[in-house]
Amino acid sequence: MTDTTEIHRQPVPDSSESEVRAAAAVAAAVAPRWARTAGEERAAVLRRIADLLDEADDELVTAADAETALGRTRLTGEVARTTGQLRMFAEVVTRGMQIDAIVSEADAATQRPDVRRMLRALGPVAVFSASNFPFAFSVAGGDTASALAAGCPVIVKAHEGHPQTSRLTTEVIARALADAGAPAGLLQTVYGQDAGRALVLDPMIRAVGFTGSVPGGTALMKLSQTRPDPIPFFGELGSLNPVVVLSGAAAASPEELAAGYVGSLTLGVGQFCTNPGLLFVPADERLLGAIAAAIRAATGSTMLTERIYDQYERLVAEPAWSALSQLGRGNRGDARWAPTPEVRQVTVPTFAERLDELALERFGPAGLVVAYDDLDALLAILPSLPGSLAAGVHAGDGELEDAARVADTLSDRVGRLIFNGWPTGVAVCWAMHHGGPWPASTAPSTTSVGATAIRRWLKPIAYQSFPDELLPAELRRSNPLGLQRLTQPEGAG
Amino acid sequence: MTDTTEIHRQPVPDSSESEVRAAAAVAAAVAPRWARTAGEERAAVLRRIADLLDEADDELVTAADAETALGRTRLTGEVARTTGQLRMFAEVVTRGMQIDAIVSEADAATQRPDVRRMLRALGPVAVFSASNFPFAFSVAGGDTASALAAGCPVIVKAHEGHPQTSRLTTEVIARALADAGAPAGLLQTVYGQDAGRALVLDPMIRAVGFTGSVPGGTALMKLSQTRPDPIPFFGELGSLNPVVVLSGAAAASPEELAAGYVGSLTLGVGQFCTNPGLLFVPADERLLGAIAAAIRAATGSTMLTERIYDQYERLVAEPAWSALSQLGRGNRGDARWAPTPEVRQVTVPTFAERLDELALERFGPAGLVVAYDDLDALLAILPSLPGSLAAGVHAGDGELEDAARVADTLSDRVGRLIFNGWPTGVAVCWAMHHGGPWPASTAPSTTSVGATAIRRWLKPIAYQSFPDELLPAELRRSNPLGLQRLTQPEGAG
Repeated sequence: MTDTTEIHRQPVPDSSESEVRAAAAVAAAVAPRWARTAGEERAAVLRRIADLLDEADDELVTAADAETALGRTRLTGEVARTTGQLRMFAEVVTRGMQIDAIVSEADAATQRPDVRRMLRALGPVAVFSASNFPFAFSVAGGDTASALAAGCPVIVKAHEGHPQTSRLTTEVIARALADAGAPAGLLQTVYGQDAGRALVLDPMIRAVGFTGSVPGGTALMKLSQTRPDPIPFFGELGSLNPVVVLSGAAAASPEELAAGYVGSLTLGVGQFCTNPGLLFVPADERLLGAIAAAIRAATGSTMLTERIYDQYERLVAEPAWSALSQLGRGNRGDARWAPTPEVRQVTVPTFAERLDELALERFGPAGLVVAYDDLDALLAILPSLPGSLAAGVHAGDGELEDAARVADTLSDRVGRLIFNGWPTGVAVCWAMHHGGPWPASTAPSTTSVGATAIRRWLKPIAYQSFPDELLPAELRRSNPLGLQRLTQPEGAG
Repeated sequence: MTDTTEIHRQPVPDSSESEVRAAAAVAAAVAPRWARTAGEERAAVLRRIADLLDEADDELVTAADAETALGRTRLTGEVARTTGQLRMFAEVVTRGMQIDAIVSEADAATQRPDVRRMLRALGPVAVFSASNFPFAFSVAGGDTASALAAGCPVIVKAHEGHPQTSRLTTEVIARALADAGAPAGLLQTVYGQDAGRALVLDPMIRAVGFTGSVPGGTALMKLSQTRPDPIPFFGELGSLNPVVVLSGAAAASPEELAAGYVGSLTLGVGQFCTNPGLLFVPADERLLGAIAAAIRAATGSTMLTERIYDQYERLVAEPAWSALSQLGRGNRGDARWAPTPEVRQVTVPTFAERLDELALERFGPAGLVVAYDDLDALLAILPSLPGSLAAGVHAGDGELEDAARVADTLSDRVGRLIFNGWPTGVAVCWAMHHGGPWPASTAPSTTSVGATAIRRWLKPIAYQSFPDELLPAELRRSNPLGLQRLTQPEGAG
């Protein structure tokens, strides 16, 4: 982490309100047909987008590295993750997983009519991209991939932190859509915060996806509720990602744990939504010493934007933080907008007493270690933590029972639990859940990663007493598409 | 409909803020254990509640008839529907349908960890019951049944329109919980609007279900968003339920259609959320005449509350409504709070021009008939309708193609489509969807009726790299509960 990269950023002009309106009208015009395309057709479009992004990865990575300073290695991996995600959703819709058909056949005995239900696209959606993932949570990211797969046209509000990367990605997608014979209106990008607000209020937009800060997300969520017709808002806002180390684990491998923790804490200059902001450890001098040594060896590098850097500096200067006992402090490094990684330390009683100001995300490489003497006392405060995307528990030999208690307690406060691992690095796979209670997500039953991310952009429709010829193919009595459907068993309600 | 019933209502004292807080604390205390009970255990509790409600149905119906004037026949049917619904959710959880497990096994090639995801209860939830269904959408109604099935304790805010019925239902459920050995804190009822607001703001409450008016629901939804931790709000607020009659259907059976329409419009004094507030018919004199005759033969009877009656009288006195051409008007009848059923008529161009004031729910037996000359002109305005719970299309011989166009157009605006039928009468079955775009629902991907109503009260949790002994039984590698689980196929993302 001895990066001296400077950020080079050339803004794209803000989109006007009338440009936003026009984009929404275009999206609305192409929406009905796209919603009704077969899964295979949508899959082919998603795969074509993935292929062209892979072909352009060198150019994309160069643009993103100039704008984010995240480094070519990480960014090349992120492009691959992004195209892998597009291909995963192609698989999901090829198999018709998003249809979720349920059939209740007519029942003369109870005079029940024939009712058949499936999911269908909501309509055009708005996607707000994130600063910290210029690909995976940006123009071609998971929200876009899942929404296109669902059958929804997408209008992305580009992040100010990487406008040229956004423009370039939009151009690659436009070529892919043209190649695949799909309408250009399926993916459009707008620029500027005013354009973002206009997008949330546009009558054609039927849902919003957002990845970003608590204040930014809360403001847009509230804006979405001021519409004459409030719409769903799916926001991923902030997360502390607590990790608990049990005493046996601490005793067995203090150096390894310390290295893992500091690596996760400082990865990407601490700018991950799954950054382990809170670490609960036994008051074990060897582990605490190892953490102190590891953080002292860490060096900051360029943060994503000046605003993010300024905010970090402000948060770590607050007395609530800076008055805490310092466990260790790394080096600022010589890059511009480079923070100093640091870890501070409190006891359980102090943490419990000042929960509101200490259980607070400080976006960047600032970690809080809470040293506990008694696991029961720790378990008593875990339910008071704000919602998180992820949490971890590290257990040594013979500690499975304690690990189960920790996992069970945390399971009400987080969307993902990791055993003997760290929260950074979200695997793109069908079973992944990336959400959680507020503020991890504004809609805790939904996810922005994994196969079920597609469900945010779908709504059910039930057909009652419909003749077969009028039913969508997905619901016809002969099941011509061979979909996996759930049929209500006789006598079951 | 020559009912002269008077409403007899004895209020239950309002719950104080500290009573609400205490109830929420009790719910939170029993929540973790209830969330982790096996499906069979929850099913047994739901069935016991259903059995005791069935046993008490005479007493319940007497109480409800005195408070709502809905009549013994309808209310007896509603108790049966309510207990049927409890038993349906018992079936759902017995089969483990609510678990929705997805498994992504570790993949060494892509360094993917083992990830396993399932749904689990959100925690204590608040349920606001409706005026118009003292059983099916009240204390023991669908929201309560689905939340208990999900594993969530419930606190019901009783409706002012039927306090004694609510109290009595609460007592029956308390006996059933005691019988089944379940904690009393699983179902508690509070009274009064201040108590309702305190409930929405209580830190222990994790989600809200609501059935009621657009203003009431919007206010509570906004209140839920002012919490430090905004929570999901699932509201069913209002619905116009448009029905389109095609010309062949109109010509073939005008009297039958008129009788069906007026029957649906005046059912329960028009106080159904699925009341057909908008009827689109060809400008066919025989059908219009038959509707006029049918409505003239209808008589109003006691509405649910004085407030609902006053509001109806106010809405039909508004110039936007009262200046419209009158197709027919029934009789007020001699009951107190009895409205006069009436149907007014406009042309498509007038309707389109004044959509904002004409496409508006007037809760009660007031129907608007829009006469069209040209189906294409009608299809052009249907996408502008507000969201509805249901819609219908009536087609004659050889009209399937036109019916398909109508259904396809309406499918973006409603949650349920009915062929050759009327929207009132929502079958309780697995495939039912009772939701729709705003204002039909505040969360258009969710339903308050049907097997999937349970999903509102659940949130996913993913387990990463967990040893088998630490996994919940639902996710263990051997699948000891024999659940239907989705496993990510190899090579799929």
